[in-house]
Amino acid sequence: MRTLYHHVLSAPSRLIRIVLAEKSIEADLKAEKDWERRRDFLKLNPAGEVPVLVESGGSVLADSGAIAEYLEEMWPEPALVFGTAPERAEIRRLAAWFGHKFSREVSEYLVGEKLLKRFLGLGEPDSAVLRAAVHNLRIHLDYIDYLVDRRHYLAGDVFSLADATAAAHLSVADYFGDVDWSAHPLAKDWYMRVKSRRALRGVLADRIPGLEPPKYYDRPDF
Amino acid sequence: MRTLYHHVLSAPSRLIRIVLAEKSIEADLKAEKDWERRRDFLKLNPAGEVPVLVESGGSVLADSGAIAEYLEEMWPEPALVFGTAPERAEIRRLAAWFGHKFSREVSEYLVGEKLLKRFLGLGEPDSAVLRAAVHNLRIHLDYIDYLVDRRHYLAGDVFSLADATAAAHLSVADYFGDVDWSAHPLAKDWYMRVKSRRALRGVLADRIPGLEPPKYYDRPDF
Repeated sequence: MRTLYHHVLSAPSRLIRIVLAEKSIEADLKAEKDWERRRDFLKLNPAGEVPVLVESGGSVLADSGAIAEYLEEMWPEPALVFGTAPERAEIRRLAAWFGHKFSREVSEYLVGEKLLKRFLGLGEPDSAVLRAAVHNLRIHLDYIDYLVDRRHYLAGDVFSLADATAAAHLSVADYFGDVDWSAHPLAKDWYMRVKSRRALRGVLADRIPGLEPPKYYDRPDF
Repeated sequence: MRTLYHHVLSAPSRLIRIVLAEKSIEADLKAEKDWERRRDFLKLNPAGEVPVLVESGGSVLADSGAIAEYLEEMWPEPALVFGTAPERAEIRRLAAWFGHKFSREVSEYLVGEKLLKRFLGLGEPDSAVLRAAVHNLRIHLDYIDYLVDRRHYLAGDVFSLADATAAAHLSVADYFGDVDWSAHPLAKDWYMRVKSRRALRGVLADRIPGLEPPKYYDRPDF
């Protein structure tokens, strides 16, 4: 059996869990607090970040983008990167948009201020940082509105790695209750479609003790 | 003919130029000062960043990772992502390491302080930021030393997308004269091998008026 080192509120870990579930690939989940920089974990991934996938044969895979491409190559069906080369490039462009741009502008601020500061005993969240994150989040939701006004899913008519990546990151922001869905009805419709997928269930069922998500958090019809 | 929107000291643009040259794919280069946020450029890439590749048929490709995978799919030879699935994942892990981690910890600080502040009239570089960049750079060079002590190129015995990405970013730091090669002999040997490739020539020949690189900058035997 393979093992996925992950953390419940790590968006890149959530992405890989969604990809595994979409492709019905089993993996043992091992929780890793990567901010503790455990020595044996750093040997697996010198970048010191979850997710890391360890295959039963011993292969160690790190970086969520590299792991997603690996899973796509090993288990091509159902495909998450598909179509012509330009269509595949559009899926990867949007996966990178959420995996890097959204991550830097939203996810890392929220997780850093609301979760890591608490775990590391660094005091209260910085409200200026949180305001910036929520401001940025609004612009990303506008972009999702724009995309799904033209397409059923972010990169086209079919669920792809772009949707999986966006959902992984949005689900973390949503856990913290920071997504104003009412101002973004098209993005909300899209997220309802994504949330109703069986592959999202595992991710949406996780809870951090003492940090409850909003009531609607795991309901597809929110 | 295809067009590549790029900037001379943008490491992701350099990566795509190196990939194009490795695969002998021709492209018209168009200089784009992406920090000016030109409206027609934002229509091509709402992320507002170079590189952007526009194919003669009209396909628009953005995000250097997505463009590199696109070029690999369209022109598989010579391959830059190759081997078994775990080997391909290792190439992609290291490409992401330099394309994202090195970029955030080194390239963006150097370009931001030494180039953009000047272009935007924002005053002198912040020496604390530059010290942080040079400190981080040293750690990345240690990692290259470690890798090429075991392998001829970063991800294995053959030049790959990992080397192309690392070279793109290191060549920008080297342009600013910030790389202490003497302290990193193994990394230096690797970079000499990479610099001697024909595909690096175009990138290494570029100059920013009024900002000269060190004398050894484009010499393979430095």
